[in-house]
Amino acid sequence: MATNIVWHQHEVDKQRRGAAKQQKPCVIWLTGLSGSGKSTIANLLEKKLAEHNKHTYLLDGDNVRHGLCGDLGFSDKERVENIRRISEVSKLFVDAGLMVITAFISPFQEDRDYCRGLLEAGEFIEVFINTPLEVCEKRDPKGLYQKARQGDIKDFTGITSPYEAPKAAEIVLEYSGQSAEESAEQLFALLQLKGYLAHA
Amino acid sequence: MATNIVWHQHEVDKQRRGAAKQQKPCVIWLTGLSGSGKSTIANLLEKKLAEHNKHTYLLDGDNVRHGLCGDLGFSDKERVENIRRISEVSKLFVDAGLMVITAFISPFQEDRDYCRGLLEAGEFIEVFINTPLEVCEKRDPKGLYQKARQGDIKDFTGITSPYEAPKAAEIVLEYSGQSAEESAEQLFALLQLKGYLAHA
Repeated sequence: MATNIVWHQHEVDKQRRGAAKQQKPCVIWLTGLSGSGKSTIANLLEKKLAEHNKHTYLLDGDNVRHGLCGDLGFSDKERVENIRRISEVSKLFVDAGLMVITAFISPFQEDRDYCRGLLEAGEFIEVFINTPLEVCEKRDPKGLYQKARQGDIKDFTGITSPYEAPKAAEIVLEYSGQSAEESAEQLFALLQLKGYLAHA
Repeated sequence: MATNIVWHQHEVDKQRRGAAKQQKPCVIWLTGLSGSGKSTIANLLEKKLAEHNKHTYLLDGDNVRHGLCGDLGFSDKERVENIRRISEVSKLFVDAGLMVITAFISPFQEDRDYCRGLLEAGEFIEVFINTPLEVCEKRDPKGLYQKARQGDIKDFTGITSPYEAPKAAEIVLEYSGQSAEESAEQLFALLQLKGYLAHA
C-alpha cells in the first residue's frame, strides 16, 4: 500500500500559528466514565479559554460519533479505531495551532498513549476525571447506565466493558463534591501555570 | 448501533470564531489530476492568506494519508472512505472557524458533493484545476505516471481509474501556460471578491 506517497513541507507551520495566538498548541485529553463530567468540564474550560482569546476546539463523543466515526459501533475494536481517528484529527488541529479539548471515555491506556505518541513532548495533557462509578451511575444524565443494566446497551464502560484508569495523568480531578466549575478552574490554572497560555 | 448518542450544543460556535478572525470559515476544495498543481497552488494560496492574517489549514493527500487515512489504500471503495473522512474533518475545521484548503485528486463528483452537503450554503468552494492529462503526465513530479504506465501502481486516476471533472465548480483554473502563482492569485482574488476575507 501507499508507495505513491511523498511528504510535503507546508509553508505555514505550527510554531507560526501558535505564536500568532499567544498559546501553546496542545491536546487536553479528558478521560473518565460516562457521567463523570467530561463534557461539562470541557465546555466550561473552553468558554474560559475563549474569554482569554485562546483558540480552542472541542472534540467529543457526540460531535465525532455523528460524523467522522459515524460508521463505528462500540465494540472494543471499534473503540480503538474511534480513538485512533480522534487522535489523528487532534494532531491536525494542534498542527493548525489550536488547543484541542477532547472529551471521550477513552477507556484504554494504550489508546490514550497512542495519541500522546503522535505529539511532541508537552503537547498531550492527560486529564483524569476521577468520579467514582457509583456517583456516575447515580447521576446517569442520559439514562445510559439504566439501559446498560437492563442489557439494552452492549459494551458499556464500567458495566460490561473495562475502564483503565490513567497511570500517569498530568492532572487528576478528584471527585470530592467540588463543582464542575471548580474543576474547570483547576484545569485552567494548571494550563496557566505550565505556560500554555502565553507562547514564548 | 449508536443508540447512546445525544447531541451537545457547544458554548463557543463557528460564528463567534469566524468573526474574531475577520474571515468566513469555508472549505476551498481543490480537485484535479495528479500533477495538475493542486498542492503547489494550495501552498501558495495558504501563504498568501497567512500574509493577510487569515487562519487556514491545509489538508492534503500526503499529510492525511500518513495519519487519519493510513489504513486505506487506493481502491474505489477506499478512495470514497478517504474523501468521506476528509470531508468530516473539514467540517470540524470550518466549525472551528478556519478556512480549510484541501488538495486531493478527489476524482468522484458524488464524493465532492458529499462534502458540499455537510456544509452550509457558501461554505464549500469547489476549485477545478483543469490541467490536461498530457501536461500532468509530462510533468510527472513524483514519477507516478511512469509507475502507473508500467503497471507498478494500481488504480491510478487518469490511467486506470476514472476522473470525473466537476460539473459546476465555483472556479475553474484553466491550464493556459499560467504559473501556479498566477492561479493562486486568481483564487485569492475570488475569495476577496466573494467576501470570504472580511466577515460581516
